Amino acid sequence: MALPKKITIHELGPREGMQIEKNPVSTADKIRLIDRLSECNFHEIEVTSFVSPKWVPQMADAEEVVAGFKKNPATRYTAIYLNSQGLARAVKTGRLDVEGSLSVTASEMFSKKNTNRTIEETLIEAERRIDSLKTMNVTAKEVSVMAAFGCNYEGNIDPKHVVNLIARLIGIGQDYGISVELIQLADTMGWGNPLSIRRLVGMVQDRWPDKRINLHLHDTRGMGLMNAFAAMEMGVDDFDSAVAGLGGCPYAGFKDAPGNIATEDLVHMCNEIGVETGVDLDKLVDVAREAEMIVGHPLPGKVMRGGVLQTYRNNAASVGQ
Amino acid sequence: MALPKKITIHELGPREGMQIEKNPVSTADKIRLIDRLSECNFHEIEVTSFVSPKWVPQMADAEEVVAGFKKNPATRYTAIYLNSQGLARAVKTGRLDVEGSLSVTASEMFSKKNTNRTIEETLIEAERRIDSLKTMNVTAKEVSVMAAFGCNYEGNIDPKHVVNLIARLIGIGQDYGISVELIQLADTMGWGNPLSIRRLVGMVQDRWPDKRINLHLHDTRGMGLMNAFAAMEMGVDDFDSAVAGLGGCPYAGFKDAPGNIATEDLVHMCNEIGVETGVDLDKLVDVAREAEMIVGHPLPGKVMRGGVLQTYRNNAASVGQ
Repeated sequence: MALPKKITIHELGPREGMQIEKNPVSTADKIRLIDRLSECNFHEIEVTSFVSPKWVPQMADAEEVVAGFKKNPATRYTAIYLNSQGLARAVKTGRLDVEGSLSVTASEMFSKKNTNRTIEETLIEAERRIDSLKTMNVTAKEVSVMAAFGCNYEGNIDPKHVVNLIARLIGIGQDYGISVELIQLADTMGWGNPLSIRRLVGMVQDRWPDKRINLHLHDTRGMGLMNAFAAMEMGVDDFDSAVAGLGGCPYAGFKDAPGNIATEDLVHMCNEIGVETGVDLDKLVDVAREAEMIVGHPLPGKVMRGGVLQTYRNNAASVGQ
Repeated sequence: MALPKKITIHELGPREGMQIEKNPVSTADKIRLIDRLSECNFHEIEVTSFVSPKWVPQMADAEEVVAGFKKNPATRYTAIYLNSQGLARAVKTGRLDVEGSLSVTASEMFSKKNTNRTIEETLIEAERRIDSLKTMNVTAKEVSVMAAFGCNYEGNIDPKHVVNLIARLIGIGQDYGISVELIQLADTMGWGNPLSIRRLVGMVQDRWPDKRINLHLHDTRGMGLMNAFAAMEMGVDDFDSAVAGLGGCPYAGFKDAPGNIATEDLVHMCNEIGVETGVDLDKLVDVAREAEMIVGHPLPGKVMRGGVLQTYRNNAASVGQ
């Protein structure tokens, strides 16, 4: 299949990035990061996470962050939440595009470790989730399967199992009058490779040819960006990523931390292969460098060090004149 | 085309890595790195560079390094050299598989900056190179084109220009009775992407279907490993790489330093997609970690931080029993 003409990028840096940082990042720095990202013209920026400060103290200032950033009218600002309390907090800010999503983890062991629920319990919980969404007048168009390509605790994940879980989530949605438009496949722990991406994406496309697929990729073992390319060649045009590769912290002692694919590397690759993103790459590379300063340690993004090829082309052309 | 059953990997870490390091690496550490790599069962390890210590002081101990390492009988030990003096030094050690190669840079500007010769002067020099090779009884089976996918100084490189240069080199070889078996395409400054890899590899394969192609890839902008995958899907089965991504040093102030693709990430990818390498990945990951300690700063390899997937699978299986 030909590459898509254009892809949509969901920038997760302010949320995924700040969540994992060991050293506290000030509220002002979080707001500055969002404001700088807003200048790059993203379709969406996920700005924070409404979780209990008991579990994630780094996110205790979620309300302040949301109150503080400037909006770009071209960008949607979202947040994540794990339960109805978090949902209520997100809605209450009045400044976010709050969305619902029905999600499940494909790995039983990771589900229990991460959420203290089995997969079946999570699916039952999804029905309660829909109730809260309806109560709060929040729409839901997305289902999501985490650890869809493998799990550090459970090993390989059978793609047929993933397809069955998607079918269950879509079915639960239908029961409650929710029409799912987007299927997210999350490679939460960086297990995917181009062959497994093609296999699962192909199975999902065969089963639901009318639905859009989003890929949430981590670059834990260096295959994140090639997985995005492999998916694009299957027609996938919707991706999550985080500026500078925030969301993991491989150079500061976080063992096995699974960083998101770096947004500027994704945009740069798209520019090189002729796929539009709508994102201003030069500004974004500056933000990536600033993100390193904000967290105070190197981040894995490559283009911010290697340089944008188009800049070299422009310089070469001006020398040649 | 299907992926190759097996690829050959040329480990360049001891040469490319040590050459670029700012802080001096001791001769003992260089030898230790080679000895540890020898335990991983490489087809070839490039151990040093015979260049003038005036230009590259880090390589002044080339003879001592070559005298000091232990040989694995399964591995070929090679070195690079830039002129007949260097060639003579390499041969004189009596411990190396000295090989000849006819090489040229596809970028006129880079050729002048890097070697103070035009492309045409380099081609004339190639004839003198053959004379020295014959005098020293060294065989040559390889031609190589550097900056084959683009150049920081000159911008894009036309693949037709690269094919013409290969034809010239092969022709010069033929004039002197040299039968070229391997064509190396070097992405010296990290300009390639999967589409440009497919285009140039395809053109070379069409023109010389009987010759093997080697790719020398740098991961300057995060596309190195995906370029290797794209080439494998074209049937390419011969790759250069450097343990831990040595050969560039993006985290220590070397602006634009183009690191080689990390060998352990390449081997890990191959293991995941069912392509044999013959390399012991677990041992290699340990060597990658040791390489970081030797150079004294983080290196870009991912798997040494993210962990080998097969190890997680094995652990998951043993928990499941």
